[in-house]
Amino acid sequence: MKIAIIGLGLIGGSIAKDIKNKNLATKIIGLDRSRENINYALNQGIIDEVASSYYELSDSEYIILTVPVNVIKKDICDILDSMHPDTTLFDVASCKSEIAKATNGHIRRKNYVSCHPMSGTEFSGPENAMTNLFNGKVNIICDKELSGLVHLNKVQLILSELGMETVYMTSEVHDNYIAFISHLPHVLAFALANTIVNTKDFEKMLLLSGGGFKTSIRLAHSSASMWAPIFEQNKSATGKAIDLFIDELTKMKSSLSNCSDSEKLIKSANVVTIKLKEIENNKHKKKCYENN
Amino acid sequence: MKIAIIGLGLIGGSIAKDIKNKNLATKIIGLDRSRENINYALNQGIIDEVASSYYELSDSEYIILTVPVNVIKKDICDILDSMHPDTTLFDVASCKSEIAKATNGHIRRKNYVSCHPMSGTEFSGPENAMTNLFNGKVNIICDKELSGLVHLNKVQLILSELGMETVYMTSEVHDNYIAFISHLPHVLAFALANTIVNTKDFEKMLLLSGGGFKTSIRLAHSSASMWAPIFEQNKSATGKAIDLFIDELTKMKSSLSNCSDSEKLIKSANVVTIKLKEIENNKHKKKCYENN
Repeated sequence: MKIAIIGLGLIGGSIAKDIKNKNLATKIIGLDRSRENINYALNQGIIDEVASSYYELSDSEYIILTVPVNVIKKDICDILDSMHPDTTLFDVASCKSEIAKATNGHIRRKNYVSCHPMSGTEFSGPENAMTNLFNGKVNIICDKELSGLVHLNKVQLILSELGMETVYMTSEVHDNYIAFISHLPHVLAFALANTIVNTKDFEKMLLLSGGGFKTSIRLAHSSASMWAPIFEQNKSATGKAIDLFIDELTKMKSSLSNCSDSEKLIKSANVVTIKLKEIENNKHKKKCYENN
Repeated sequence: MKIAIIGLGLIGGSIAKDIKNKNLATKIIGLDRSRENINYALNQGIIDEVASSYYELSDSEYIILTVPVNVIKKDICDILDSMHPDTTLFDVASCKSEIAKATNGHIRRKNYVSCHPMSGTEFSGPENAMTNLFNGKVNIICDKELSGLVHLNKVQLILSELGMETVYMTSEVHDNYIAFISHLPHVLAFALANTIVNTKDFEKMLLLSGGGFKTSIRLAHSSASMWAPIFEQNKSATGKAIDLFIDELTKMKSSLSNCSDSEKLIKSANVVTIKLKEIENNKHKKKCYENN
């Protein structure tokens, strides 16, 4: 079984590594605009062959699309046009509504499964690709009624081999949720970094910073070419999330001088991390149970 | 040598564990308002003895003050009053100006060294105390000219045994820097958590969230009783940092619909994480060099 991966960055490279490790394909064909990425992926055995056009991927069982969302939006119909009628296409884009509009009514819309595996790191490029990046994580499939059952099943099969559970929702709900749990946190990390970098003593401050700062700033390492198009495609939901955040931040600011007011806000915030830890413990328990 | 620790939480407990492990004291005496913390610390051998008043600590070589900053501000002069004239007192408070004012002109001001070890976690309580929490981290000493040389040397000696490097600055500079690299990141995590908790689908969102969200929200687990007084004591610098942050966030929001504008802002943010990684690599290199 041939599998094609368009985009040999962190996500494409990590998917390829898992597919190799689990022997899910006889051949992985890679396509990337960056000669560097291609050479790295070939030299490291992450892919077996290189293609230079979408037509060369037409006899693949799967085509996996892991390029920035602006490229997906622009090229997805060309890829569907060039595919074999049985090929399954899925993407991993972090926002789905604009891509849903781009594919709307395409004659091969059923071959496309709109996916968002909830995993990644702040790094990019195939040199940061890793095995097991998706193990134990959630994959979101959007607008599943627009995908053919055979393609849905094929995508779930391969992603479950990579250790993912699937949940379903519409593109609109997805983009709204992800604005809060991914796009807003990235915006905050970028804005925090820019706040620091514009102070006159920023390098001195960095020398002092501890682990808390490092986690707060972690996502600010993310790639501009990947994130600028995400923000553009999800500007409406992300903008609303930013407005709600500014309301909460303003409340925090007003409470600074009053211990009992800020204690209330902090305790309300604690609810989220306590809930997250419960979710993680349940996952862990479930895993222990499954392993017994 | 007797060492007294007032406050047996995460930081006090972690200092005690390192002191034990490195055999730096013949006896560790603990004092805490929480019976639970005392019992835990005694049962786990984190401390050797319990005191119930500051007077009982008067013959200690060191008194280490690791209680919330409002308690430090209220009690530090009582502790200085009750101490032996040779005892060295240091605290670990996250903001220093208000405590500097409280101790200003005290007859034993020279016995006090104003410290801030730049290490901690989002957890609290002695059950989360750990060894080596301070190893490789920076300790800030404020207003060193107000401390006696013998006390400064004693504090640097014990903290270097715990693996810390010392830097010096005034309380005012400290509070301004820390507003940016610690207090602002905490405010942002609390405000992000409150933004999420106030959406109607917050539990569904948490079930989807990946590693990025978890790091962004990590500091929102921090304790209200510890952080509300920090915000109160450093409200001015933290408030200014919030205002500068809102300016940057507003720029990010305005750029959402324009890829080239947001690319510029993201690339400027990347400078901070690249600089941080350089600092870490240099530390690592230095350590490798020292170990050879």
